[in-house]
Amino acid sequence: MPDDHTVIDTDVLVIGAGPAGLFQAFQLGLLGLRVDLIDALPEAGGQCAALYADKPIYDIPGIPVCTGRELTERLMAQAQPFIGGRLHLGWVIDTLSGSLESGFALGSVSAQDAQAAGPAFQAKAVVVATGAGAFLPRSLNLPGLSALQGVHHHLSDALCATWAGQDLVVAGGGDEALSAAAQLLALPSGQAPGRITLLHRRAQFQAEPDRLAQAERWLAEGRLQLAVGLPTAVHSHDGRITALEVMGPDSQTTLLPCPHLLIQLGLSPKLGPLADWGLVLARKQVQVDPATFESSVAGVHAVGDAISYPGKQRLILCAFHEATLAAHALSRRLQADHPSHLLYTTTSPVLHRRLGVA
Amino acid sequence: MPDDHTVIDTDVLVIGAGPAGLFQAFQLGLLGLRVDLIDALPEAGGQCAALYADKPIYDIPGIPVCTGRELTERLMAQAQPFIGGRLHLGWVIDTLSGSLESGFALGSVSAQDAQAAGPAFQAKAVVVATGAGAFLPRSLNLPGLSALQGVHHHLSDALCATWAGQDLVVAGGGDEALSAAAQLLALPSGQAPGRITLLHRRAQFQAEPDRLAQAERWLAEGRLQLAVGLPTAVHSHDGRITALEVMGPDSQTTLLPCPHLLIQLGLSPKLGPLADWGLVLARKQVQVDPATFESSVAGVHAVGDAISYPGKQRLILCAFHEATLAAHALSRRLQADHPSHLLYTTTSPVLHRRLGVA
Repeated sequence: MPDDHTVIDTDVLVIGAGPAGLFQAFQLGLLGLRVDLIDALPEAGGQCAALYADKPIYDIPGIPVCTGRELTERLMAQAQPFIGGRLHLGWVIDTLSGSLESGFALGSVSAQDAQAAGPAFQAKAVVVATGAGAFLPRSLNLPGLSALQGVHHHLSDALCATWAGQDLVVAGGGDEALSAAAQLLALPSGQAPGRITLLHRRAQFQAEPDRLAQAERWLAEGRLQLAVGLPTAVHSHDGRITALEVMGPDSQTTLLPCPHLLIQLGLSPKLGPLADWGLVLARKQVQVDPATFESSVAGVHAVGDAISYPGKQRLILCAFHEATLAAHALSRRLQADHPSHLLYTTTSPVLHRRLGVA
Repeated sequence: MPDDHTVIDTDVLVIGAGPAGLFQAFQLGLLGLRVDLIDALPEAGGQCAALYADKPIYDIPGIPVCTGRELTERLMAQAQPFIGGRLHLGWVIDTLSGSLESGFALGSVSAQDAQAAGPAFQAKAVVVATGAGAFLPRSLNLPGLSALQGVHHHLSDALCATWAGQDLVVAGGGDEALSAAAQLLALPSGQAPGRITLLHRRAQFQAEPDRLAQAERWLAEGRLQLAVGLPTAVHSHDGRITALEVMGPDSQTTLLPCPHLLIQLGLSPKLGPLADWGLVLARKQVQVDPATFESSVAGVHAVGDAISYPGKQRLILCAFHEATLAAHALSRRLQADHPSHLLYTTTSPVLHRRLGVA
């Protein structure tokens, strides 16, 4: 257990703060359960925020069109009565133990540094709403690389100070890499790195037209350098990266000096330790009972794109239904005063009080 | 088959234009199926429009609060690309025959007059989205009453012209009855009825405070009369109503002259002929397979409050999921070119074209 985090006691821990997890928190709160919500990304919204924040969605019922960001904002506003102070961002759940009888203990680590412990939870039940998995930065396939000093996956102000005046390699050829290059070139002279080299497997980039034109201009002007090829090995000294071996299109290997490496290959979903927790998977999907959305482990439910059941469609609107039935199943099990009939938000004074609209 | 209606050929006829039926039409249209939608009420929205048009709903995902009317408008706007000219209001489906192999033939009658034939349909499949049933005007429990001339369930301009200067009994003590009385008293003198008598089982009314105060003022002023008691028999002459026998609180029966009777007892859901169609019911709910939302009759699916399956919650958001899975099951069955993988509205040019946003 980390020194700097107390154990958070809650009724239900929801893992994943995408649309499914946000509405799961709303439904659990509406039923009077305490809920905490955790996500690997630095903001809520899951794929909606990370992959299509500005793209339109047309099939959310009652919302003819909205972007991923707008949907996230709407779901955040709706869940707000229940998640204030209970939304934990930037953490990945890495351990789960216990049972429905004893309660579940869960530990987390930083999404940016698996050695840095995050908050721990004691929960009566768990809902897995991880979608395709925790979105973590994609890395280069070089063993031992991530452990070296000088290798980074996130661009931050603190980081910029460490490499001022020194050469830097940015790995990647997509929006993330070109956007990082633009940020670096905009730094004031005292903080700017020396030579900035883009390392990409081919000479063409994949990005928005404006960003593409900008990058090509900088390459032509010599403000950016380009190294084309696949990194095949890493050189290091005293635990610090010094260079990469890069195999070019001509199959020749050259040595690229690399005192600092910033990897910007986008986000990749990692399913995480679901299988380690004893959840029965089929084709990497959690198998659930579609009446309760309980997994093969009693007290661990699952909703959204992470699950499978007969007829399942991987649509956001289906996750809303799944979260609702999971919440009712959990309420029946965890609350002695679970009402014998369904309460409606339109008419129930109890629900109005919980929503703060009484 | 009625003379004045041709048979409407469609892929899927959706019975019921409440939230479930409207979103069902959207999903079927999105998947490229032709869809027609029919409802007994004069406007779309089902219970949302008829019972809580102005009341807030808090649990539609992504919509922190909206009224029943607003939700209806949103769902209508979303379904618009697919239901233009295909929304048939004021009709009740009364016959269904055929099969998935031969196609289904359906007949309808007017919701206000079961003798008046409405549009007929030839459909490859049917979705029952009737909720608690077709909302039809509640009547008095007097055998033969509805067949008599002079007995009405709906107030209309045409009707007002027929009873100008003649006495009228309005049966009911709720919002509908008091609202009808207000409309009648507001008629210009040439069209106004003679004496207007409210017939209610007790001397207290149930209505909004303003309307209540208004009715009590009119009673005090003699502009409205009140008859308290239960109608126990109807008198008629040549097929026309002439009077009602009314048993008062003192158990004495009096004769209330009644050349015209306007029954305003509100709407009552009628499950309709679902059982006659061979659909297996349990506790009046249609039993469905929750992977496809198909009933016991192949090609007849059902969604929303009319159905039951393990874990079912009678919530609008669950109906959205049910309609979506029903649409995909119907697409798999009816369309040879059903895509083998799910298309997303965010990215699919095919769906954009169907939505009219290409």
